[in-house]
Amino acid sequence: MDILNPIYWKNNSLHIIDQTLLPSRLETISLSSVREVWTAIQRLQVRGAPAIGIAAGYGVVLSSLMHKNQPVITFKEKIVEDIDYLRTARPTAVNLFQVLDQFDNLITNSDETVPEICLAIEQLALAIHADDKDRCRQIGRHGQEVIPGSATVLTHCNTGALATGGIGTALGIIYTAKEQGKTLQVFVDETRPLLQGSRLTAFELEHAGIPATLISDNMAAMVMATHKIDAILVGADRIAANGDTANKIGTYGLAVLAHHHHIPFYIVAPLTTFDLTLENGQQIPIEQRAAEEVKIISGNYISPENTSVFNPAFDITPHHLITAVITDQGIIFDPDKHKIQDFYSNKYSEPKLKESLQ
Amino acid sequence: MDILNPIYWKNNSLHIIDQTLLPSRLETISLSSVREVWTAIQRLQVRGAPAIGIAAGYGVVLSSLMHKNQPVITFKEKIVEDIDYLRTARPTAVNLFQVLDQFDNLITNSDETVPEICLAIEQLALAIHADDKDRCRQIGRHGQEVIPGSATVLTHCNTGALATGGIGTALGIIYTAKEQGKTLQVFVDETRPLLQGSRLTAFELEHAGIPATLISDNMAAMVMATHKIDAILVGADRIAANGDTANKIGTYGLAVLAHHHHIPFYIVAPLTTFDLTLENGQQIPIEQRAAEEVKIISGNYISPENTSVFNPAFDITPHHLITAVITDQGIIFDPDKHKIQDFYSNKYSEPKLKESLQ
Repeated sequence: MDILNPIYWKNNSLHIIDQTLLPSRLETISLSSVREVWTAIQRLQVRGAPAIGIAAGYGVVLSSLMHKNQPVITFKEKIVEDIDYLRTARPTAVNLFQVLDQFDNLITNSDETVPEICLAIEQLALAIHADDKDRCRQIGRHGQEVIPGSATVLTHCNTGALATGGIGTALGIIYTAKEQGKTLQVFVDETRPLLQGSRLTAFELEHAGIPATLISDNMAAMVMATHKIDAILVGADRIAANGDTANKIGTYGLAVLAHHHHIPFYIVAPLTTFDLTLENGQQIPIEQRAAEEVKIISGNYISPENTSVFNPAFDITPHHLITAVITDQGIIFDPDKHKIQDFYSNKYSEPKLKESLQ
Repeated sequence: MDILNPIYWKNNSLHIIDQTLLPSRLETISLSSVREVWTAIQRLQVRGAPAIGIAAGYGVVLSSLMHKNQPVITFKEKIVEDIDYLRTARPTAVNLFQVLDQFDNLITNSDETVPEICLAIEQLALAIHADDKDRCRQIGRHGQEVIPGSATVLTHCNTGALATGGIGTALGIIYTAKEQGKTLQVFVDETRPLLQGSRLTAFELEHAGIPATLISDNMAAMVMATHKIDAILVGADRIAANGDTANKIGTYGLAVLAHHHHIPFYIVAPLTTFDLTLENGQQIPIEQRAAEEVKIISGNYISPENTSVFNPAFDITPHHLITAVITDQGIIFDPDKHKIQDFYSNKYSEPKLKESLQ
């Protein structure tokens, strides 16, 4: 199966597929400064919680290359400045902050020379990327537990190769099901306003030869009422300690509709998307984006130019509407504070994670 | 308050605002043949269940003018052929068929001369238009019962002057509330795929000076969870004898979401939108429209060109999710087969209707 490779490090530059141009143009751009990485994240040229984290990691490598001729103290200060700048690119996906924290720790705690730190930074960025790739595979494997041999699923936004460092999260389960010989039919929400479903997911599934049917977001309820949907699979941008999940706007509505139609609703994410410092979803910051994202498509206004717009990029799905969270370390059914605590204490520890990477 | 006049009969032609050009161009086109009227309905240059009926009525007038030099038998045959042709323009809105049935009866039962029949046809078309205008006003008046003095409402698609022969149905209630000095805030679903919310409703509300906030359809759930919504007001294309309602795709999902959030959900329609010949919503034919409506916006593909699409133009909301149907003759709370039967036998009779028109 042919899966895209939308993000890679080569010749001291970060190369990404510019996702704002898809599906009409498949174009790879190279980013060679921290500012370019920040802008690419902010403009959604690279998006998806895991991919944002990976891109930010390479952004720190670019910072280290930029400042490598400075004395070590200045070198460290400059990189920490750049790390803090990268933190401001987008507020909701926790992966961005968790990745940047790792670099901050590495730099702050290092007593090595500039070339040694440069090497360590590059190795960490590559390891974060490889780690996410591996987590996608583990997710795909665990997810098969909820996918029958012949399945119709519905998905939202894009959670595939274009959103991660590997085969994806929710889409990773779909790719793995196909690799295992399962028969799949996928309903793809177009995911307004930025159309990640029609532009990216429909594109990825076509690329992978998986039958997909595109719908407007407001058709999902009718699809659930008139078709046998086995599972709804979506990603996550941040999961609080009680399982409440921030994900692309529209996810919460799908969860309510799934509940009404007795359809299992799965959040699919690596454990790196959990933020155990937040008790619940109300504490997750929700990015508000420009009104023009709703009012302009393909360069043309589709509404009066002065119309007011409410454009939250994410919504919060309360944990009681989530059938399970499918992670790289296993599935957490009926997620709540206690289940997630237990899961973490039993399954997730640094050594165990490292084992799973071998 | 300035309300649009998007459909009128003048100089032996039907004049309509071409709604496919809004909001960027406000252009009135004149239609002078049955085929042009059929095409305008099919292409959604004129849309909205009541407005489709009104336009079809003027279509029959155009047919009568076209054939007025024929002997009376041929004249009648030709018009009945045109009536049957107009029936094929769109399948879901019942108003189209009810209006055409009235002309069919008039012609079949008439023993008058060609000029007399021509006059009767024109008078019927004008009366149907005037009747709908009056019904909109009655709806607006009755609807105030469910709108508090300061209200936040959510609406879907377009149900205003652009959808009817008067001030509209759901939007008619909003216009009337404003006229009565109520303070309103309206959330407007953009209503994919054809964007009647962003293109038409946001345009109408701006024109009328009523504060509106545009959202993508998939934001409605978050709006319901995070704002105090007093009522959801939507129109109808056909209401079965048990209250099940066909309306613009997305309506059913909103009804489920409203139920989950304990928000009153109102169908707003003239009694002409009821089809008592159908027991329930499963019997209402649902129009499937072209895939390109979902895949192309402003002339550009927003998905891979070959992607499969499911594009039902309407969905069915079961009556148990409907708080009330607000009609020109009063409000039917908790609609079901018996409530609607009682309502019809008590309220709706030809003489009473005629009285209300005076």
